[in-house]
Amino acid sequence: MAERIWLYDTTLRDGAQTQGVDFGAADKLRIAKELDDLGIDYIEGGWPGANPTDEAFFASPPTLRRARLCAFGMTRRSGRSAANDPGLVTLFQARTPVITLVGKSSARQAEGALGVTREENLAMIADSIREALRHAEEAMFDAEHFFDGFKDDPGYALACLEAALEAGARWIVLCDTNGGTLPHEVETIVAKVAQRIPGERLGIHTHNDTENAVANSLAAVRAGARQIQGTLNGLGERCGNANLVSLIPTLKLKLGYEIGVTDEALRHLTHLSRTFDERLNRTPNRHAAYVGASAFAHKAGLHASAVAKSPCFYEHIDPALVGNSRDILVSDQAGRSNLLFRFAEMGLDVDPDPEQTAELLAVIKDREARGWAYDGATASFELLVRSTLGQVPHYFDLVSFRVIDERRFNARGELVTTSEATIKVAVGGRNYYTVADGNGPVNALDHALRQALAETYPTLETMQLVDYKVRILTPEKGTAAVTRVIIESGDAEGRVWQTVGVSGNIIDASYNALHDAIIWKLYVDRARAPGA
Amino acid sequence: MAERIWLYDTTLRDGAQTQGVDFGAADKLRIAKELDDLGIDYIEGGWPGANPTDEAFFASPPTLRRARLCAFGMTRRSGRSAANDPGLVTLFQARTPVITLVGKSSARQAEGALGVTREENLAMIADSIREALRHAEEAMFDAEHFFDGFKDDPGYALACLEAALEAGARWIVLCDTNGGTLPHEVETIVAKVAQRIPGERLGIHTHNDTENAVANSLAAVRAGARQIQGTLNGLGERCGNANLVSLIPTLKLKLGYEIGVTDEALRHLTHLSRTFDERLNRTPNRHAAYVGASAFAHKAGLHASAVAKSPCFYEHIDPALVGNSRDILVSDQAGRSNLLFRFAEMGLDVDPDPEQTAELLAVIKDREARGWAYDGATASFELLVRSTLGQVPHYFDLVSFRVIDERRFNARGELVTTSEATIKVAVGGRNYYTVADGNGPVNALDHALRQALAETYPTLETMQLVDYKVRILTPEKGTAAVTRVIIESGDAEGRVWQTVGVSGNIIDASYNALHDAIIWKLYVDRARAPGA
Repeated sequence: MAERIWLYDTTLRDGAQTQGVDFGAADKLRIAKELDDLGIDYIEGGWPGANPTDEAFFASPPTLRRARLCAFGMTRRSGRSAANDPGLVTLFQARTPVITLVGKSSARQAEGALGVTREENLAMIADSIREALRHAEEAMFDAEHFFDGFKDDPGYALACLEAALEAGARWIVLCDTNGGTLPHEVETIVAKVAQRIPGERLGIHTHNDTENAVANSLAAVRAGARQIQGTLNGLGERCGNANLVSLIPTLKLKLGYEIGVTDEALRHLTHLSRTFDERLNRTPNRHAAYVGASAFAHKAGLHASAVAKSPCFYEHIDPALVGNSRDILVSDQAGRSNLLFRFAEMGLDVDPDPEQTAELLAVIKDREARGWAYDGATASFELLVRSTLGQVPHYFDLVSFRVIDERRFNARGELVTTSEATIKVAVGGRNYYTVADGNGPVNALDHALRQALAETYPTLETMQLVDYKVRILTPEKGTAAVTRVIIESGDAEGRVWQTVGVSGNIIDASYNALHDAIIWKLYVDRARAPGA
Repeated sequence: MAERIWLYDTTLRDGAQTQGVDFGAADKLRIAKELDDLGIDYIEGGWPGANPTDEAFFASPPTLRRARLCAFGMTRRSGRSAANDPGLVTLFQARTPVITLVGKSSARQAEGALGVTREENLAMIADSIREALRHAEEAMFDAEHFFDGFKDDPGYALACLEAALEAGARWIVLCDTNGGTLPHEVETIVAKVAQRIPGERLGIHTHNDTENAVANSLAAVRAGARQIQGTLNGLGERCGNANLVSLIPTLKLKLGYEIGVTDEALRHLTHLSRTFDERLNRTPNRHAAYVGASAFAHKAGLHASAVAKSPCFYEHIDPALVGNSRDILVSDQAGRSNLLFRFAEMGLDVDPDPEQTAELLAVIKDREARGWAYDGATASFELLVRSTLGQVPHYFDLVSFRVIDERRFNARGELVTTSEATIKVAVGGRNYYTVADGNGPVNALDHALRQALAETYPTLETMQLVDYKVRILTPEKGTAAVTRVIIESGDAEGRVWQTVGVSGNIIDASYNALHDAIIWKLYVDRARAPGA
């Protein structure tokens, strides 16, 4: 029977320390539910009393299906009873089933940072755990700076752990607080600890300061630890915490441990990871292990044909197990096999003859050389392919547009900025001339264009812009740089598609991407062009 | 005496497989020089004949100070002599001092992917290495799929390595081609190999598909391997290769190995890593081990005051050793100690009284809540602080601006887009009204604004925009999203500074960032405002 590993997520507490990340209370609720659905055993919700967000979260905590909610806090201060420690009192008021208490496990830390004696520190740990167990079903002890403390003075570091254990802590979690410990050190030290404390009571909490947080977690598990603390996508202060998204598939698919994550939940891992980043407005890491958009991408012509023959040679797992998919890139280095594979994957029922293939490769290569990128814009790619093959009707012609942005004082003496777009398009021999305003130049242009097309193509009404991304391609030229715009659109049928536009002018690039977005919608709706 | 580890960089070959990365020949030359300066032992320049970029690179290779240049290729095809193999002939024509040959070390791969017998594969390896040594000073063998091959059939995998060794290969490099091997497996297998092949002849080449590439490299070194292959910033196909930028400080500072990287070169590591990303127009990873902007950042108020007391508690190395620096963040969670630390670090000779501190914290908090981010815009942060304290003179007032973008047919019947900006500013009681065009709306606005200010503030002439970045903050609203613009500027005195602007309108946000960039330049020049 497979051994059980317990997963403890601290995204909502340690992950909230990430530079550039700010969770609202509503974010926290949603993320907690997603972690629960994933099959995480313990979800650390935050630090009651530390800030208004955490207060709001614990005031109306999420209802969890399976996971246990943990509140985080510090062991009591020196010279107070645990029952009268204001920090602990606030913590207990959160009334969570689990309380996690962090404390020192290094003599140098206790004496240097807290200014308390070694004995008082042991009493602070034991008293706080005992008091926590009067308020919660389960208490655990996060041994801060454990590995550095153990190197300094192993006897005292172990005494801290034993104080927590004897006081009733369910888990003793060994924390590599400053992230500097290497995997072989973790394995050696945890093995020594496991001679005194059973592995089923030991957890590991690592940071990525040497790019070894995942390996350090695995090393601790090999040495006997049975709980792993980490975060979604490796969020966390400095270089981040251990990345649960990388650890989960390794534990389940490669090491055969039993974890709370079912096969079905594992198939949502890629989606969960990317949605989480999008919610935080972080660009998902294309190169993330298991779940990155490039994790199963094959660029070299040589590899691509080998992959088509026998995927296992270049793929260490079946990407479908984690909800990811193979992606064969179209690029400079691509050959015909890449192109055909890409067509097949995109569901493009296109089988170009050799002459057409050569033409397509030349067209794509030329576009890519000028800054177009189709990795994130499959709708534009499909249009490029189908247009080159003569399959896309001619829906409309742009005659001209003009966008005016003005910043001036309004009637109330405030500086305001307005954007207005006028556009002239020819549809089936007739000119439409419209004007619209918007929250910015591209928004105004989008409104004017769709207004001009509404009469002829009424289905465009249900279409909307979901995302708009700008990337500057040659930043050494400052504002004169080339701009790439990627637009994501959606419609009432639930379709979502991405298009790309490139130009030296950001407005022009945006128009190109908007144009493709509209044409793709008309094409998949099989709209009839009026001139056709 | 410390043991020597040899570093082999494959950024220019395996790194070129990264999705979204395209090196030009000039890029390759510059990167090779930088790797040489860093102290890399072997630099793999590319695959001669594989594409025009690599052909151009080897046609006029860089002059290296210390590193040895390697050309990469495949062992001979089946049924040909190595001397007549067209691939090898092209490779030898590159006339590099080192030739690296990749070949199969798995029976299943040789038979399945190449369709050759086990014996023929051994002959292909030995013949190719022997022939390479007639053209180069040194040859090495990259054993593709070694770890999977060893698990399948250890005897045959070892026979492949021995064939290369006996033919004279200086290094036998064990490749985890699909990246699926875990650290404990690497350590066990390399230890077994090292019983047959001396560690001073063994290299390791890993990929990051389980987020263990760095740990796998370290595991191989522990088992005896003495060469590590990797890339800058972990570039590479799929999830990337082993990240040399993380490995170098660990090998040198923590494990005490002798490597080609001097203490002085190590202090340029952060700069090298970030410049490399900027050149590729990739955003440097804030959370990168050792070199990330957040690697020594402390957000929580609790940590920040502890760090100020005793940095080693929360920092595993002195950031200066790798050319990085401590960064105490200003954020929601920040306290007064964070703020003061930040001032000191920025060289701001500002010592606000408690009332001013409260006001500053409130102003910063409000701005951050509305989307401003000062992490990457220290000039805007300084202006915000100094303005709040009344230290920044009033240089000019914007009265109004108007930007017009037009797309229409020009005289030659081509669709062209033009951008024109008019601006009215009041300087010292006088109105300046100017018009300028540009490559896009922001470029035009920048031109018009600086034209309007040129007479009063002539030093602005030497200022230029270096970079322009756009980020959309609430993408769920599509083009109506809030936009954050970050502008980097430089001047003739060699200063470089970053400013930020936020607005619902991209033009407005850009103007705000431009405004700060100009004010900061005037402030540091101690320009006298005409009304003052």
